[in-house]
Amino acid sequence: MNTNVSEKDLSSIMVIFGGTGDLTHRKLMPAFYNLVHDNLLPKHFAIVCVGRREKSSEEYRREVLDSLKRFSRNKIEDQKWKRLEQVVFYENFDFTGLEGYHRLKKRLNELDDIFGTKGNRAYYLAVAPEYFETIVQRLDESGLARSVGSWNRLVIEKPFGKDLATARSLNESLLKVYREDEIFRIDHYLGKDMIQNIMVLRFSNFMFEQLWNSKYIDNIQISLLEKEGVGSRGGYYENSGAIRDMLQSHILQILSLVAMEPPVDLTTDAIRNEKLKVIRAIEEFTPEFLRKNVVLGQYGAGYIDGRPVPAYRDEERVAKDSMTETFVALKLHINNFRWAGTPFYIRTGKSLAKSSAEIVIQMKSLPNILYFRERYTQIPNLLVIRIQPNVGVSLRFNTKDFKSHNNIVQQNMDFSHENSSQGNTPEAYERLILDVLRGDSTLFSRWDEVEASWKIADRIIEYRERNSFDFPNYNAGTTGPVKAFELLARDGREWWSL
Amino acid sequence: MNTNVSEKDLSSIMVIFGGTGDLTHRKLMPAFYNLVHDNLLPKHFAIVCVGRREKSSEEYRREVLDSLKRFSRNKIEDQKWKRLEQVVFYENFDFTGLEGYHRLKKRLNELDDIFGTKGNRAYYLAVAPEYFETIVQRLDESGLARSVGSWNRLVIEKPFGKDLATARSLNESLLKVYREDEIFRIDHYLGKDMIQNIMVLRFSNFMFEQLWNSKYIDNIQISLLEKEGVGSRGGYYENSGAIRDMLQSHILQILSLVAMEPPVDLTTDAIRNEKLKVIRAIEEFTPEFLRKNVVLGQYGAGYIDGRPVPAYRDEERVAKDSMTETFVALKLHINNFRWAGTPFYIRTGKSLAKSSAEIVIQMKSLPNILYFRERYTQIPNLLVIRIQPNVGVSLRFNTKDFKSHNNIVQQNMDFSHENSSQGNTPEAYERLILDVLRGDSTLFSRWDEVEASWKIADRIIEYRERNSFDFPNYNAGTTGPVKAFELLARDGREWWSL
Repeated sequence: MNTNVSEKDLSSIMVIFGGTGDLTHRKLMPAFYNLVHDNLLPKHFAIVCVGRREKSSEEYRREVLDSLKRFSRNKIEDQKWKRLEQVVFYENFDFTGLEGYHRLKKRLNELDDIFGTKGNRAYYLAVAPEYFETIVQRLDESGLARSVGSWNRLVIEKPFGKDLATARSLNESLLKVYREDEIFRIDHYLGKDMIQNIMVLRFSNFMFEQLWNSKYIDNIQISLLEKEGVGSRGGYYENSGAIRDMLQSHILQILSLVAMEPPVDLTTDAIRNEKLKVIRAIEEFTPEFLRKNVVLGQYGAGYIDGRPVPAYRDEERVAKDSMTETFVALKLHINNFRWAGTPFYIRTGKSLAKSSAEIVIQMKSLPNILYFRERYTQIPNLLVIRIQPNVGVSLRFNTKDFKSHNNIVQQNMDFSHENSSQGNTPEAYERLILDVLRGDSTLFSRWDEVEASWKIADRIIEYRERNSFDFPNYNAGTTGPVKAFELLARDGREWWSL
Repeated sequence: MNTNVSEKDLSSIMVIFGGTGDLTHRKLMPAFYNLVHDNLLPKHFAIVCVGRREKSSEEYRREVLDSLKRFSRNKIEDQKWKRLEQVVFYENFDFTGLEGYHRLKKRLNELDDIFGTKGNRAYYLAVAPEYFETIVQRLDESGLARSVGSWNRLVIEKPFGKDLATARSLNESLLKVYREDEIFRIDHYLGKDMIQNIMVLRFSNFMFEQLWNSKYIDNIQISLLEKEGVGSRGGYYENSGAIRDMLQSHILQILSLVAMEPPVDLTTDAIRNEKLKVIRAIEEFTPEFLRKNVVLGQYGAGYIDGRPVPAYRDEERVAKDSMTETFVALKLHINNFRWAGTPFYIRTGKSLAKSSAEIVIQMKSLPNILYFRERYTQIPNLLVIRIQPNVGVSLRFNTKDFKSHNNIVQQNMDFSHENSSQGNTPEAYERLILDVLRGDSTLFSRWDEVEASWKIADRIIEYRERNSFDFPNYNAGTTGPVKAFELLARDGREWWSL
């Protein structure tokens, strides 16, 4: 997005803490391979993966290749793998002690000489959050966090704290070592093409730009729905839940992109300033408000694709009486001139009937005259931005039923990215890694955004903790709690998908 | 459209004058067959075709079957053909004498008894225009034009006059025998699905309804383009030309549907009143105006689909120095509050590079900021209503180029009627025949509409006759005269198709 950094020198070494973890194998390595495939991997570049387990770089590379074969969207070609393989190195040491960092420093300097990477460093913390502060402290102590005449960046995976207080504390620790503009807080949702496209759709199309306010839009629905349960991540999820895992991060980020005012230009801070204003304009979440406008849910046993799936409380490492929410729906207003009067309905959950992430912009209705006077129920115009799985945009409109001569039917004008000439969409991490190297933090969260989001999320978490809920309240494989439908039905509205 | 007549009794006999002509064989009979196919042919119904040539009904039916096999969009099934065949009859007599009409009367009365058609009559004049007045006079004299306790209607094919004076004279003759509401002036373009859909699209979609005025729309383009030359119709075309053949009728009808105010209800007259107001609000065509805003053309020899095609002046029954126009382009304004400031560009012609009829609604542009500030040329949003050949609606919009990360590309959200679940579109004549039987004249031209259109067309015809043009001025198989492009280029605009 930030076009003035695209010509920068990307020569650098990326150091990944958590080199043997899931994220590295499933997401980061396939992303690096795709960069090679798309001819976007910087010429002067190396990757050093740090893990506790003892193994040689050769062993590590073999494991990476195995992972690529399983998780890459591109077929692995020999020559391209060779290009990646020769820049991948493994170092094993204990993150908590200082000794390994000194060894790492020496190694990085050697690699600078070999690869011409000029002392530029990006440290990617793909580890459990409890290690974030320690690693950053050690990077500082060992002198790895600073280098003269070169850049030094920190990439932090979510969760960034587990509430406002812990997020603040974490942030303060980081700021002792890194400047705000050196910290890249990953929200991988922001790396998805269609999320980045929200601003383009809004601000490069006259039709949408003109209609994008409460005068024309009846309501906006954001649904991030997952068919998968928590699977092996029960331990993590017990301390997180849908509010922390999805709402505080992805959903509030999407909401702010959908609702923001046009920025004064496309610089990172101009965009983030407008996004932040949206979060700050969200109406106050009083206990009274939350009782009316929030629906929490937890899945019970059920069937998905014909196969039985367990209740949340029967998942691995989940308490038998867990009160963690696996579903949250919320109605909210944004109190500014553009949006006053247009409700936003947001919804996210696990173990649902299908996986789908989309934004539905429901236009207002016409008066019930002419074609709607007698027999026809009016279906409003819907602009649907599909984030996944079928990436695209469609517009639901009314048209003559050519068969019956006299009826009106709904049809979609559709643009599917997959069917277009543009080929596969690059994966989110591919884009985000490049942005880190470019120093473009547009698609990452600035601290004040994170802070404002936690203020919102904390209120809902408090509400959940102070009340008891009749969990489980929806069966796996269904469309979620009945109350989520009542939330809209009460307003004479409905969810347009699932 | 007019829903309150859909339940009427359609029992009747349709009498077609010109039963051996091209229109009957290529259009009307296939339309009747389609009605059988779609189970829409009235239960009590007969068709009597009148021609000069002597032949039996049996012979005639065999000819009809041959034509169906060539021209019907549906495969001819035995049982359905039998259903049609048994209601088709042929009568031969001279249209000018009275004797045949008396015979016809007797025959129709007999068929009433056989088919239960209750004396209801629709006379379809599928003959050369010079016979219109004579036939109507004879229908009157023979008592065929009136019947007690039943309806009696007249269907007139275009051209309705060759200028305002002749149209008025013809109309006066008809009105001596038929009331205005008994006269159905066919404009087969109005029978096309997508033309009927214009009102539905405009008045049942909030998004379009809100944007449909000069505040949001930069310009509107109506293009009816034909690859075919005049072929064997040179004799007719020499006395017609593109202005009479297309502009006075189809184009002004489409223009009025695109530009009309919402009618107070969907009754025929409410709709026609609004259409008429559009034609009347077209700015005055002074000679000065026409010199600036009209482009006339005539095709020279050229190549279409790789085959050489003759110049218009070398077509059969065309004068070697013909000044008849085979192309006309026009820029005009509609002087009312809705459209002041938004130009309409219209264009029609023969022997062009391709056949296509479509309406392009070009939205205004955004300011050249944000995504348009540096490298991108702004392509405006276009709503395209495709009348033929690929019936549908599409919306051209700007979206992120997922491949390049940073560019904006144009894509279409598309709805193609052919690809939808609705199957084939019924042919125009199928719909129009049913409307005649129903007594619904919404899709036919009312006299005052025809009159207003001739007032417009006459000005252009006079302009053509008083000036000389350097014909031929475009080659067959091209995109028409260069001046038609200059007409828009002058305004900083362009035709969006061909």
